[in-house]
Amino acid sequence: MRAIVIEAPSKIAVKEVAAPTPAPGEALLDVRAAGICGTDLQLQRGYLDFIGIPGHEFVGTVVRVTSPADRVLLGARVAGEISIGCQECAACVEGMARHCATRRVLGLVGKDGAFAQQVTLPVSNLHVVPETLSDDQAVFIEPTAAAFEILDQCLVGPHTDALVLGDGRLGLLAAQALASRGAVVTVLGRHQSKIAAARSLGLKAVGSEEARPGRAYGLVVEATGSPDGLAQALDHVKPRGTVVMKTTCASPTSFDAWKAVVNEVTLVGSRCGRFEPAIEALRTGAVKVDPLISEVLPLDAGLEAFRRAGEKGTLKVLLRVSK
Amino acid sequence: MRAIVIEAPSKIAVKEVAAPTPAPGEALLDVRAAGICGTDLQLQRGYLDFIGIPGHEFVGTVVRVTSPADRVLLGARVAGEISIGCQECAACVEGMARHCATRRVLGLVGKDGAFAQQVTLPVSNLHVVPETLSDDQAVFIEPTAAAFEILDQCLVGPHTDALVLGDGRLGLLAAQALASRGAVVTVLGRHQSKIAAARSLGLKAVGSEEARPGRAYGLVVEATGSPDGLAQALDHVKPRGTVVMKTTCASPTSFDAWKAVVNEVTLVGSRCGRFEPAIEALRTGAVKVDPLISEVLPLDAGLEAFRRAGEKGTLKVLLRVSK
Repeated sequence: MRAIVIEAPSKIAVKEVAAPTPAPGEALLDVRAAGICGTDLQLQRGYLDFIGIPGHEFVGTVVRVTSPADRVLLGARVAGEISIGCQECAACVEGMARHCATRRVLGLVGKDGAFAQQVTLPVSNLHVVPETLSDDQAVFIEPTAAAFEILDQCLVGPHTDALVLGDGRLGLLAAQALASRGAVVTVLGRHQSKIAAARSLGLKAVGSEEARPGRAYGLVVEATGSPDGLAQALDHVKPRGTVVMKTTCASPTSFDAWKAVVNEVTLVGSRCGRFEPAIEALRTGAVKVDPLISEVLPLDAGLEAFRRAGEKGTLKVLLRVSK
Repeated sequence: MRAIVIEAPSKIAVKEVAAPTPAPGEALLDVRAAGICGTDLQLQRGYLDFIGIPGHEFVGTVVRVTSPADRVLLGARVAGEISIGCQECAACVEGMARHCATRRVLGLVGKDGAFAQQVTLPVSNLHVVPETLSDDQAVFIEPTAAAFEILDQCLVGPHTDALVLGDGRLGLLAAQALASRGAVVTVLGRHQSKIAAARSLGLKAVGSEEARPGRAYGLVVEATGSPDGLAQALDHVKPRGTVVMKTTCASPTSFDAWKAVVNEVTLVGSRCGRFEPAIEALRTGAVKVDPLISEVLPLDAGLEAFRRAGEKGTLKVLLRVSK
């Protein structure tokens, strides 16, 4: 099959590889579409020392199952949770495979991902996609779940005055997640095209030149994708406020920790989330993703797609894999 | 009067200065004893660009008041909260002068401190010290309040498995504060003398060579006083656990922020706290401080006292000012 492969840090290729074989309990999926995430760009730069096929945002069709009980899924259009836990540790027993110490993670840790014609995942990771969602929309289930994770970690409501730092893919999903709970949200962006996309989603979005100096917020979501974002967040958060940390960078972050101590700011690391509220938000339109799609390219144009995804001003680049 | 004065970064002297005059609403206090805090050592290195008399841990006697209604306090032995708010902003109205944006802070921001024969503070900042506490013990009210602030910010109880990083003054107060709520506490120290002091307080304390590799804790208090402490804390906290940040350093902190994101760790900046629970804990003996006193020196030996306070293995150095 065709796949995008990270062969070494900064060495990426589209090539022919062996198709995966589903292990017991897994399903084999034909990938229909997949999305390039900021983390994929970090992988390319050496984050997690990942070697293999990246890709963890996708929608696919179940074409083979290993257990007769799972045959009902054959032909189903599905999205997949990306963490595969040991099923035995305390985290897994509590349903929190996302924090299993020995987890594998699709396209990120010890498991080939979805930038390929086929991929395997445990059936227990799969969620059937509602018919009303297009393939392109369904690719956003995983990042939307990451955005909704904020709502599982922080009390957000109409009382919340929130700033989202970063007008990228995750920032605009996070802003919509917060707004879905009634929060008053401002997106602080850097790119006119992305600010325009944010506004087309009904969000209040401003460039740094329009930001009111000294205005501080009770909740700041740091989704800049840059190691400088945390310092910036601390400059925008109220004393005793909360900063949600969403950026994963290979490079270390340097910041004035004393500002967080003196202002008693709480910093909340936030990663993946539950798929159920994400699917529901996409189904009802509480989260809209069509304006976030910058480009759709075929899998064989994978290198071009990665290049485009890393350009300033680009939102989501999708890979169309099979139909 | 005699006072310790930071005249420029790294330039500190004991010298004769004019005694302060109490402003309306303030009391004039004869300082009885004062304690040197890690933050004072940071001030000496340039933290906050502080110029003036440092000192924010103290006990004194009220010798003058500006309002007749406050005459009842004359002769009282008092400790003092260190933040002086504007009394008008939202933070002050909520009783949170500690987070007033224009606050002055005793011996730290825009207000001369207590390493002097006399000091002034608003009467509303003062707390009468119970008779059963010695002067030396009463000096610990302010840092004990900073330790108890953790209990106002985090849910701590017998279910809490906590690690305190740092066997210094604040670390051993924080460990006692956590233990007072029934938490299972381990202190990870670096100095045999401080580890011994911790054990004499009934705390479980280990050196890094005794620490069990890979053991992670639900709550980690970072009280190392070092910019490296945060990275160390992230290596010891469980996924979805909490790190309380207590270190204020002039130098920036560098850490792998992605670890906090991936493990969804919450980092809680924590500074000063309420005096009431601290006074009560010292009065009842829930927090013991006598083993924390390394040395007591007269005010005129202030430079020697700062030098001693900065030495490895030293716990609290007190200044005996007047009787």
